[in-house]
Amino acid sequence: MVNHITLYQHGTLALLVPGLLKGTITMSELLKHGDTGIGTGEGLDGELIILDGKPYHVHATGDVTLAPKSFRMPFANAHFARYTPLAELENVNQAELNKQLVSLSRAANTFFSIKITGTFSNIQTRAAVKSRPPYHTLAETAENQSVFTRDQINGTLIGYYAPQLFEGAAVGGFHDHFISDDRKFGGHVLNFHLVKGDVSYQLFDTFEQHLPVSDKDFMQHDFSKDDIAGSIQKSE
Amino acid sequence: MVNHITLYQHGTLALLVPGLLKGTITMSELLKHGDTGIGTGEGLDGELIILDGKPYHVHATGDVTLAPKSFRMPFANAHFARYTPLAELENVNQAELNKQLVSLSRAANTFFSIKITGTFSNIQTRAAVKSRPPYHTLAETAENQSVFTRDQINGTLIGYYAPQLFEGAAVGGFHDHFISDDRKFGGHVLNFHLVKGDVSYQLFDTFEQHLPVSDKDFMQHDFSKDDIAGSIQKSE
Repeated sequence: MVNHITLYQHGTLALLVPGLLKGTITMSELLKHGDTGIGTGEGLDGELIILDGKPYHVHATGDVTLAPKSFRMPFANAHFARYTPLAELENVNQAELNKQLVSLSRAANTFFSIKITGTFSNIQTRAAVKSRPPYHTLAETAENQSVFTRDQINGTLIGYYAPQLFEGAAVGGFHDHFISDDRKFGGHVLNFHLVKGDVSYQLFDTFEQHLPVSDKDFMQHDFSKDDIAGSIQKSE
Repeated sequence: MVNHITLYQHGTLALLVPGLLKGTITMSELLKHGDTGIGTGEGLDGELIILDGKPYHVHATGDVTLAPKSFRMPFANAHFARYTPLAELENVNQAELNKQLVSLSRAANTFFSIKITGTFSNIQTRAAVKSRPPYHTLAETAENQSVFTRDQINGTLIGYYAPQLFEGAAVGGFHDHFISDDRKFGGHVLNFHLVKGDVSYQLFDTFEQHLPVSDKDFMQHDFSKDDIAGSIQKSE
């Protein structure tokens, strides 16, 4: 039986902060937990968006390829899609839209996903440049990322909302990735204006947090000295 | 196949802070997720400890009964036990023991459970007094709880450790409940001295956080004004 009410997460945002960027889950394992999702590759190798079971990998060059099953990630979210229509919206920016989504969904205290298909203008995305050991911290990576913009583009945005209580494990609030209809443009969403789009959402009652307990670097790290919330808010 | 690497949690510590104390899971549902666990009843009705599938309910009167399958809880943890021996310890207090456990288990960055069977002295437990709607806040409940002490007693302590990152969802650090061998004394552990005991532990790679999304009071609550960390540290 397919589970539509669980959001699976491998890794935490917190482990990206000090640069614990080893790939600790494969794409084939991740896809057991969903046909829809977002993530990043080992060493913060670009940005991933999974749609209908297909994992699109947006590289720092801007190129988009399909990630192989052996592709390894330090952080990813996945779930099995069963979105419910929420609204048809026009002429709204990201901040306004997020505010409306929390209000319309009445789900500020739980996890949910949003899916927006439509026409976007002034959309700005980023894709991190892969680092090799010793890995960069999240702040260093943010200084070394590619930023892409498109004025008018049709595509799909997949976002995950986490309650503020889970800031650090996830991004408190929305974490959005994008892929264009022609599958040639995408990444982690920094900003956008929605010209016109269908917004749907999917509410979760369970957050399944999987941790890379076999990774010694993760298990032995002292997180008490990391500015987790500050670093995530700056970079995400 | 029984899952020994997942810690299930219904509700969060955070929702106890403003007094969202409605029972949103039944004991029969909870026991599907484990044969071992801890929790509290609707309205913070006493303290629960589940051992070998038996849910002992420590009332504010100090009496211990078995909770029925229909018993409802706002917060609980459960897992299927498969503990590994960690150490045989003598003459150690709670703070020293907790420090040793984190060091011996090398598991500060993930969730794990501890089980201690042995002889305890100066053990202090508490059991909250059930409140009815409008429910008490966690701070009000803490002012209105029964505290019990025993000088020498044999029994079992079940504790859950959560990484600091998850403070608020869980208790960051250890959250311990106790039941005596004669099943006549127990509760939420405030303090103890371990005379001699066998300490075992069980490491989890998955934290399954279930939220009461059908409870309107929970879904509509504004958590931004609650002092979650402060209230938990004071009360737990």
